[in-house]
Amino acid sequence: MKNIALILLGLTFFRISLVCAEEGLFTTEQFANVVGSSLPLLDDLTISAMVPAMVDLDNCSGAFVSKQGLVVTNHHCVSGTLQHHSTINNNYLENGFLANTFVEELPAAPSTSLLITQAVSDVTAQVLGSTDELSGVQRPNKITENIKALISDCEQEQGYRCKVSVFNEGLQYSLIKQLEINDVRLVYAPKKAIGNFGGEADKWEWPRHTGDFAFYRAYVDKQGRAASYSQDNVPYVPEQVFRVSAKSLKEGDVIMTLGFPNRTQRYTRSAELDYVFNWLYPMYIDLVSGWIEVIERSAERGSEARLKYQLRLTGLKNFLKSTQAQLAGARRTDLVRQRKAQEALLEPSRSFKLLDSIQQQQIELRKQRVLYRNATRSALLNMAQTLYSYAVEQQKPDSMRNLGFQARDKERLFQQMTNFDKRFDVNVDKAQWTFLIEQYRTFPETLRVDAFERALTASGPQFSSLSVKLEDFYKRTQLLNIDKRLALLDATPQQLEASEDPFIQMAIALYNSELRMQQEQDKLEAQVLPLKTVHMQSVIAWRSSQGKVVYPDANGTLRFSVGEVKGGSPRDGLIYEPFTRLEGIVEKHTGRAPFNADNEQLSLIREGIYGDYLDPQLATVAVNFLSDVDSAGGSSGSVTVNDNGELVGLLFDSTFESVNAKWSFDAQTTRAIHVDSRYMLWVMQYVDKATRLINEMDLVKDTPTTGLNEEQSSASEQ
Amino acid sequence: MKNIALILLGLTFFRISLVCAEEGLFTTEQFANVVGSSLPLLDDLTISAMVPAMVDLDNCSGAFVSKQGLVVTNHHCVSGTLQHHSTINNNYLENGFLANTFVEELPAAPSTSLLITQAVSDVTAQVLGSTDELSGVQRPNKITENIKALISDCEQEQGYRCKVSVFNEGLQYSLIKQLEINDVRLVYAPKKAIGNFGGEADKWEWPRHTGDFAFYRAYVDKQGRAASYSQDNVPYVPEQVFRVSAKSLKEGDVIMTLGFPNRTQRYTRSAELDYVFNWLYPMYIDLVSGWIEVIERSAERGSEARLKYQLRLTGLKNFLKSTQAQLAGARRTDLVRQRKAQEALLEPSRSFKLLDSIQQQQIELRKQRVLYRNATRSALLNMAQTLYSYAVEQQKPDSMRNLGFQARDKERLFQQMTNFDKRFDVNVDKAQWTFLIEQYRTFPETLRVDAFERALTASGPQFSSLSVKLEDFYKRTQLLNIDKRLALLDATPQQLEASEDPFIQMAIALYNSELRMQQEQDKLEAQVLPLKTVHMQSVIAWRSSQGKVVYPDANGTLRFSVGEVKGGSPRDGLIYEPFTRLEGIVEKHTGRAPFNADNEQLSLIREGIYGDYLDPQLATVAVNFLSDVDSAGGSSGSVTVNDNGELVGLLFDSTFESVNAKWSFDAQTTRAIHVDSRYMLWVMQYVDKATRLINEMDLVKDTPTTGLNEEQSSASEQ
Repeated sequence: MKNIALILLGLTFFRISLVCAEEGLFTTEQFANVVGSSLPLLDDLTISAMVPAMVDLDNCSGAFVSKQGLVVTNHHCVSGTLQHHSTINNNYLENGFLANTFVEELPAAPSTSLLITQAVSDVTAQVLGSTDELSGVQRPNKITENIKALISDCEQEQGYRCKVSVFNEGLQYSLIKQLEINDVRLVYAPKKAIGNFGGEADKWEWPRHTGDFAFYRAYVDKQGRAASYSQDNVPYVPEQVFRVSAKSLKEGDVIMTLGFPNRTQRYTRSAELDYVFNWLYPMYIDLVSGWIEVIERSAERGSEARLKYQLRLTGLKNFLKSTQAQLAGARRTDLVRQRKAQEALLEPSRSFKLLDSIQQQQIELRKQRVLYRNATRSALLNMAQTLYSYAVEQQKPDSMRNLGFQARDKERLFQQMTNFDKRFDVNVDKAQWTFLIEQYRTFPETLRVDAFERALTASGPQFSSLSVKLEDFYKRTQLLNIDKRLALLDATPQQLEASEDPFIQMAIALYNSELRMQQEQDKLEAQVLPLKTVHMQSVIAWRSSQGKVVYPDANGTLRFSVGEVKGGSPRDGLIYEPFTRLEGIVEKHTGRAPFNADNEQLSLIREGIYGDYLDPQLATVAVNFLSDVDSAGGSSGSVTVNDNGELVGLLFDSTFESVNAKWSFDAQTTRAIHVDSRYMLWVMQYVDKATRLINEMDLVKDTPTTGLNEEQSSASEQ
Repeated sequence: MKNIALILLGLTFFRISLVCAEEGLFTTEQFANVVGSSLPLLDDLTISAMVPAMVDLDNCSGAFVSKQGLVVTNHHCVSGTLQHHSTINNNYLENGFLANTFVEELPAAPSTSLLITQAVSDVTAQVLGSTDELSGVQRPNKITENIKALISDCEQEQGYRCKVSVFNEGLQYSLIKQLEINDVRLVYAPKKAIGNFGGEADKWEWPRHTGDFAFYRAYVDKQGRAASYSQDNVPYVPEQVFRVSAKSLKEGDVIMTLGFPNRTQRYTRSAELDYVFNWLYPMYIDLVSGWIEVIERSAERGSEARLKYQLRLTGLKNFLKSTQAQLAGARRTDLVRQRKAQEALLEPSRSFKLLDSIQQQQIELRKQRVLYRNATRSALLNMAQTLYSYAVEQQKPDSMRNLGFQARDKERLFQQMTNFDKRFDVNVDKAQWTFLIEQYRTFPETLRVDAFERALTASGPQFSSLSVKLEDFYKRTQLLNIDKRLALLDATPQQLEASEDPFIQMAIALYNSELRMQQEQDKLEAQVLPLKTVHMQSVIAWRSSQGKVVYPDANGTLRFSVGEVKGGSPRDGLIYEPFTRLEGIVEKHTGRAPFNADNEQLSLIREGIYGDYLDPQLATVAVNFLSDVDSAGGSSGSVTVNDNGELVGLLFDSTFESVNAKWSFDAQTTRAIHVDSRYMLWVMQYVDKATRLINEMDLVKDTPTTGLNEEQSSASEQ
């Protein structure tokens, strides 16, 4: 394994001068390689100075913008907190929230935490040590064990969260130590009609006019240590903060984003891409289109059932749109063929026949699993499966139980089963399950799962058709009764095995088959992992020889991307302008959500109240802008800075044509969508009068401050 | 009425020099006023020379492009003919059609006719003569009588169709005499994947890539007279034909369109606009959204019922999109308020209180009628109403019967009732009717129709709920039986009145009430018509005083519009390029209809085979282009000519933002969509090898013909 470390080290001597490298979610260590030492970008601030100003919000990013622990992030990243505090009379989600004093700041929703990176260390040797001689699943099990030990060791210190992240398919493991602040408070969020203007309708769309920003504050105890919520806590003083720009920004300006993107799969081999784009996604598009229709038909608009399934419908529609977007992107860039061509260039030097052969086995197994998982999506069956797994795990000592089935999970399961009916309607579940099984049966028998086929045909009496059969399932089950299902949480496996409930019988019939499938998968995964590492090594070597800085796939760790403010042509005949304007809000306003700007905001725009935030070229205030930086899920809330390191916006979305950036970065069409800092400040100053926060931040302006509002003027005179 | 004629005449002395007048569907008589004599536009051809080259296709426009009667029009204007000849084995609609010889040309669908304007004469005096002293409905009845007499007189000559068109709310009546060619044959239509590429999904959308063109040929007898189909007929020799351009066309080039737009309402008063945009359209958006859902729910996807209602679903979705587009346009341009402001400028000189008061009464009546009409949309009820009306009309002498109920209509009604089940499903009809009545009942009682309320509650036994009641209707009716309903075509009113069929009983119960509503409406219309004439007169006088050439609302007569090739910004942040490119077809191609370009076409594009049709600026072949000319429904197939009078394209659609042009022309956003003549020629030459037609037309090119294909080269050598 020694040579791997050498290759990585080698990269740091590789120096290229890119003024603007659009593709690449680079690690901070790669900064010098990417940006080059001779460039004016980021004179004063180095990337390492920015790290302590960055906040990881689990699936969102954020950044400190004041020495009093003020954190800016996306509005959609605080919506859980807004929802948590909202009541019918006090609907913060709808109306927004502004604390005028520290005391008024509201505790964030339970389990919200802000993570601030303290240290990153290479633990590749510790993780892989003494695993080379192991074979089969023993090796990954040993790796997992080593990782657990490193984490446990690191977390000995109170108030810290640690994780080991895998880079480049196992070429490198890093231990990341983060300060975990749990006393997080909501400071300010604009109303939904600003923060989520355009809603689902505008998701992945340009032109966009969303004020997708909000503020949290981090609190610590008086000694500056992470602590749980207490009135005695004080604002956390970050090491570094970002200054916020009210300066002009224009097309072509170089920008950089910093955030915690989740997951990309940029180095996937063509065989797997072929599976995804020529089998999996087309299958899902058919399945989900029909599924949506089944729910809409069985849960009439306006009915209670429709309300229960609204969230699922939204989820399915998003999933469908995302899948379609990725498929369109793959088609547009001829992805599968292009990747195959790249492999042809790479492979004369190495052969990956074994890798391909195992991956092909994995693909067959995945096809079977994904079809099976869809065909078993009855909420009642899934509940029965949870009950049986829980009962089985209870037979072991608590520490040996699978995650999710330990003693501490019982309360959560109890709550889930208590609230089950809030998201369940028996007719919808039945219609949905019938449809999903029918779809499943359109696939070749080789892809079906024997145990499921037997369970479907064997248990209970025989019936004329599938729907009559399922009808009987729903008629005979006791799981619809809340008391009966809650009582089953205390049942032993034997008691469940004696049950005549058709769903429980099916769950038991499937149990061993699922275990076997999982084992088979684990076995293949254990075989394939070291091969993937070697493959990644080759890719890096080859790309480096082409003069490219190779970045690891996104994995939730801090990454930066460099690009410029840039419009584009998403498709023939259409041009995206780089900026949208305040007046576009008036244009989109229909009075109906999600296009329901409020009257005050509309008046301000109609009267042309722009203040210091007027853009000289646009002759109005910019709302959102596009750039060609790289991003991925989890990049939401990424700070966007200009070449002076000043915050010019927050990344909050990307265009429809960019959704495929998960698999490949197409410089022609990939565009990130940012909310402009000047719109944030305009909303804060004129719409919401959040002058307390404006005063707290370190603002930079083009001109000497002439357009200060009264509070600021008088404050500066004091 | 004399002064009206003077005002119209006065306009012809009004001379303005517009290089580019985007708004205005002008009559050909206004040509000199609009274009001005000093302009280079249309050097050789005058508008009057173009008239005999224009073809009116009833709801579509077309033009002669060869001396052998070859007519070019939109693909969607010949789809009836393609459908008529299509069989499962010979699907012309799907695969296109090309006649390689005259003999192979196929007769157009029954009742297709090409109308060629022969003479237009002002008959205002004859139409209005001796009507001034009449009052109430007598006056419009007399006008109708005069018109009928003029038409009947004009149509004495065999082979001609005549009509009297009303201009400017009755300020002018014109008798239009057209040669009616009934022997129309299909010569060529590209396959659906070209002619309707993008289908419904791309309707009203830009960017667009549709090859929406096709060719008919007009045939006459050997003496050159219109005649019914005969093998002995010969191609019609038109007086004038358009040359077809293969020359370059670019943004900013002045163009003119000529066609037969159907109907605009550009001079509607604000009170009516208020009714349309603040009551009617919002009501329809709610209603139709729900209605679509009801059909989709009651006719499952893939079911026979869904097939039966597919056409209605498409229709409803188009209607919904159109209504939304118009509403959005009215909001964007603040139409109602703007119109009110215009009225305020106009009205100091005149008062229209009486007009407004009667129109207000009409609006109340229209609200009631539109709600009533929606609430009575059961196909079975409508059939019963037809049966009863037919029986009643049979009591009169044939010539006195209402249109549609004369002896000659019986066969058509018989066919309708025979084929009824092709578009009918009892469950869908029931679900739909229940929904529509429930919607109707959400409106105030003052807007309901007593007879309908009584018929709903009175006939038959009492039931617990509306749906149980309607259930009983469908259970008891005999109209579901084809033999029984056909037999009823011979029933007398008395026999029907004795029927116990609930739908027939309801039809009879509604009959007199509908007559009364119609009479009330006619009475108000008779009152309002002369007032609207005077109002229009004032509008013309006032606008003329502002230096504007006032064009009459579109009414299916020949109009021209002048504009330029022009992209635009439909909304903030988005720019439409003026042209789309061949490569955009590859980009949109998904392999699934409506985005299923064929492989041959895709190969040609990928290989960059552009021939003489390469645009030097685009570096490829242009497919569609945008312009700011004025258009309306029926403008489909309008010829689009350059400043040399050469055909550069066919208008076939307009953008979503333009749908509201029915009510007002917003120069900022209104854009017509044209298929570029160079794309037409490219498809003909390279995809479909329709060289016979290319050779037949008079092509104009920038450069000496160098890129001729082999057939042409050898033809010119012979």
